[in-house]
This record gives sequence, structure tokens and C-alpha cells, in this order.
Amino acid sequence: MARTLEPESVACVGAGNVGRSWAIVFAQAGFAVKLYDSDTEAVRNRALPAVRQSLEDLVAAGLLAESRSVLDRIQPVASLDQAADGIVFAQESVKEDAQVKQEVFEKLGKFAPAGAILASSTSAIPGSQFMQTVREPERCVIAHPVNPPHLIPLVEICPSPWTSTDTVERCVDLMQRVGQEPIKVRREIPGFILNRLQFTLVGEALHLVGEGYCSPEDIDKVLKHGLAMRWAFIGPFEVAHLNATLGFQGFVDGLGHMMRTLARDAKVDYEWSPDLANRIHAILTQKTPVDKLPERQAWRDRRIMALRKHLQRAAVELDE
Amino acid sequence: MARTLEPESVACVGAGNVGRSWAIVFAQAGFAVKLYDSDTEAVRNRALPAVRQSLEDLVAAGLLAESRSVLDRIQPVASLDQAADGIVFAQESVKEDAQVKQEVFEKLGKFAPAGAILASSTSAIPGSQFMQTVREPERCVIAHPVNPPHLIPLVEICPSPWTSTDTVERCVDLMQRVGQEPIKVRREIPGFILNRLQFTLVGEALHLVGEGYCSPEDIDKVLKHGLAMRWAFIGPFEVAHLNATLGFQGFVDGLGHMMRTLARDAKVDYEWSPDLANRIHAILTQKTPVDKLPERQAWRDRRIMALRKHLQRAAVELDE
Repeated sequence: MARTLEPESVACVGAGNVGRSWAIVFAQAGFAVKLYDSDTEAVRNRALPAVRQSLEDLVAAGLLAESRSVLDRIQPVASLDQAADGIVFAQESVKEDAQVKQEVFEKLGKFAPAGAILASSTSAIPGSQFMQTVREPERCVIAHPVNPPHLIPLVEICPSPWTSTDTVERCVDLMQRVGQEPIKVRREIPGFILNRLQFTLVGEALHLVGEGYCSPEDIDKVLKHGLAMRWAFIGPFEVAHLNATLGFQGFVDGLGHMMRTLARDAKVDYEWSPDLANRIHAILTQKTPVDKLPERQAWRDRRIMALRKHLQRAAVELDE
Repeated sequence: MARTLEPESVACVGAGNVGRSWAIVFAQAGFAVKLYDSDTEAVRNRALPAVRQSLEDLVAAGLLAESRSVLDRIQPVASLDQAADGIVFAQESVKEDAQVKQEVFEKLGKFAPAGAILASSTSAIPGSQFMQTVREPERCVIAHPVNPPHLIPLVEICPSPWTSTDTVERCVDLMQRVGQEPIKVRREIPGFILNRLQFTLVGEALHLVGEGYCSPEDIDKVLKHGLAMRWAFIGPFEVAHLNATLGFQGFVDGLGHMMRTLARDAKVDYEWSPDLANRIHAILTQKTPVDKLPERQAWRDRRIMALRKHLQRAAVELDE
């Protein structure tokens, strides 16, 4: 994408939690952001105030120098037509419904300049279910974030069968330019990579709790006081590489048998009952009742910001 | 355990990476530690210098005020007899071999005072395979740490069929007293909780890499820039609880279908080939060749120490 004197513009379509967080990502990186939602009232009454709060939180956490200029780059627009006009990139974050997404994509395809990338935040709907009928389907791609994307940088770039390699590469470049950490999923697969890994682990966790081997709190402790203390800065393959004298190969030579045995013994497709979900919910609400969730979510976001700042600092101070 | 004027003593049996890290845990908490290894030379020539280095690293990281008094509390001993004499607790961290462990436990059972807890660090051998023949088998229990335990606090307390409830409770108390984060596994299961979750996730990761959906680096990125940015301070169940307006129940009502679909679609028992392990090893060694592993392991430990310090500080400064 050529840089011009005018900031390039992007459209964020859908102004819920995910859409407005994307608006922050792009505005922080200097883009002019057009924020659109079919509920135009909600943009002014809920999304923009929430964006303002998030920006103030970033400043308080030391992750942003000042919020005003970022906020000024986010402009609400009244139609998809206006949203798509002159953009280089659109990020769709509307309802998880293939038909709704298809309608939005068709309109974006019609109104956006030729070559502008049209990306979807969907976490579960393959692009092949809503991208085929769009004008220039080769520029449509999935860019699945982790919620909220302005705090958690990973984003999964996944093509539909019609997506061009050029679109994937330009989308990866753009995501890097705005400070995200993109990975390329090579071809369509349900749940991409992140949610497959997440719900595979959660499936086995439900099995272990459901069969009475441990409590839900124990599962959370195993992650936060155990596994994630390494995964937060090295992933599972590098953990294995560093856990054997001869590296990953040595790890597999020594423990491959155990790895296979435990994986075979796992019951990730455990048929957990509504009653089990209920029991877990009851335990979680003892600590955080449903009416205290917004408060605890704000706490979670402060903790993510502090963690991100720590990780950035540690990468500078402690990395070879 | 009654507190006396003399510090209580514990035995650390096996002075490899895990055993000497346990020695630090107990010595830091004020216990008199008797460190024993069948290779007595290795204790003086390798284990104690490594302990000294680790203690200096803890001081440098701001996690320990001074190292001298801690080091002074760790005394090498020349026999299992001496190691077990007068102890309240023994932590065995010898070779992962049921027969070797059985011999060590039988001797500990013979020499240790009645009621002293005998714990094993095994990560893969169920207690029922080496604890039955010990004197007072009801005091034998597994206390499986994450490596290294003086940096990563999680420890899994798992009974054998003969372990008494009292032993489990006293072991949990002791672990809390020395600053670890114990969870109780309710009954024997291969791999306990942590390694089942770990190798279930790794199994699906091998499937995704093996079938060409993504690269090994992508898997590591998904964890470190995505999933672990929440798991490092809230586990997967609380993540779900905070990701829906109505909490965990709302999450399951809305996304339970996706959770089940992805879990069913996972192939955690994927038959990965030696060739796949080889390819992953080759990629990991591009970044860290085998001869640079000790350096990178030292870096990993510095990063864990910095992360732990961050998590401790954040818990004080940001928690409600």
C-alpha cells in the first residue's frame, strides 16, 4: 500500500466489543478509521465512549502517550457506502451469522475501491460460507483476532478457497504494521488454529472435572501457576526444545511415548452435560457473580495491559 | 507438623535439575535440607554450584534478599540413611524408573521417622507402581512439580490407592507453606492434570503442523501472543466466564456447539512421524542450535523470574 500525505483509511464494520477494539488498533497506528454499525445510535452512545475509556486505560498503563489524536482519527459513519469509500482495508466484526456477513461483504465489495482488502473477524464461520458472491472474492480473507485485539496481538489470517496469495501477504503486512502478531493459516479448517488448541484443551479439562479428577479451580491453577508461566513467552514447541539436553528431538526420543499415551487417553470429545456446565458456572460465580462481571472484565484488561507491558520490557531488557 | 526451635528437616533425594530446585524451595522457606544423590561426587561438583548460581539469579531478579543463609541450609549427605534421619518430609526426584523409585522409597520408609511424608516428583509413573511395598504406604504421595519448581509454583498432589487423606492434606499444607501452588488430584490417572492438558494441546498442534495447516512457529505464536496472555493470570474456565455477558453459562449456551464441534474434530492422537519431529527440531534449532541450549535455558529462567515478579506485583497493585 502506497503511503500518501493523507492518512489511508480503513473501515471497521460492526461496533461491538471486537469492532471498536479494532478501531483502536488502526487509529493507534495512524489510520483514519471509519466506524460503522447498523445500529448508528449505539456507535455514538456506547462504542465511542467505550473507545475513549479504553484509550485512557492505555495511557494509564503506559502503553499510549496520549489519547486525543487517536480518538480524533475514529469517525462514525452512517452507511456502509460511506464506510467503504476510499478505503484500503475493511475489518468486519458483525454478528456471527453467515447470511448477515454475506450481505455486509457483498455491499463492501460493491462500494470499496478495487483491490481494497475485505477481512472478517469471524471465529467460527469459514470464509467459503460467505465470501464467494463478493465482487473480487480474491481480496476477501479472514483476520480472526483474540478479544480484545487492541490488547492481545495475535491474529489468524486464513484464506477462503478464492483468496489470493497477494491478499494474504498484504493482510499480514498490514497487521504487522499496526502492531499485531499475524499467523498464516494455510487453508480453511474449522476453528483455525487458536480455537482448535483452546477447545481441545478445554475438552480434556471438562473430562477431568466431569469425571471428578479435579475441580474447575484446579484447572485454572494448572494453567496460571504452571503451563502458562512458560507459554506466555515461549510456546509449547520451544518449551519442549528447552526441556531436553538434545532439544526437541531429544525430548521426543525420551518422552514421545508418554506424549502419545496421554494424547490417546485424552477424551477431548467428552460428552459434558448441561449439569456439569452448571456446576462450573456456580463455582465461578462464587468468585465473580454475574453482576460483577463488567468490573472483573475491566480488571482482566488492566492485567492484560500490565502483562503486555512486562513482556515488551522483558523482551528488551532480558533477550539476547 | 509442630514447629520447634531447631529448623525441621527435609530430604531431597536425587540432585539433578529437579531435585536441586526442590532443595532451593525448602531451604528458602527455612527448612534444613539434606541433599542426597547416589552419585555423591555430582552433588558437590554439579548440584551445589548450580544451586549457588540459581540463588544468585534469584537475588539479581529481586526475588530473594540474600543467598548465603539459604545456601547454608542445604547440606549434602552421603547415604539415604542419613538423608531420612529425623526428617518430616522427603521429596524424591531420582530417575523415571519404577524399580529405582521403589528401592528408594523402601529405604526411605525404613529410615524415616514414623509419619514423615514421602513424596515423589514423578511426572509419569503412578504411585501404585512403586509405593505399595513401603513401610506405612499411607504416607507416600506424588508431588509432581513443573520444572524448575523453585521458579514455577504449581505442584500436583496425587494419591496412590494407599495414600491417606491426612497425608494429602499435610502435603498440601507443606507445599503452601513453602510458597508452592498445590492442586489435589483426587485419584490416580496417567499424566495427572498438567501433562494431560499439555500433551492434549501438543497432540492437536502436531496434527495441525503435520497436515500443513500452519508452521511450528505459528503454534508457539498462538500461545505466546494469544492464549497465554490470559491464561498467565486466569485459567481457561475463568477466561470463558469473562467472555460472555452471562458468564460461563452464557458462554456455553452461545458457544457450546462450537466447543463440541472443534473438540470432536481435533486429532490429539495424531500419528506423528519421526520425520515430523525431525522437521520441527530443524526449525527450532535454526533459532537455538543444540550447543546454545544451556544459554537459552538460562534466558528462559530469567524470563520466568521476571514474569513471576511481574505477576506478584500485578496481583498486589491491580487486584480488587
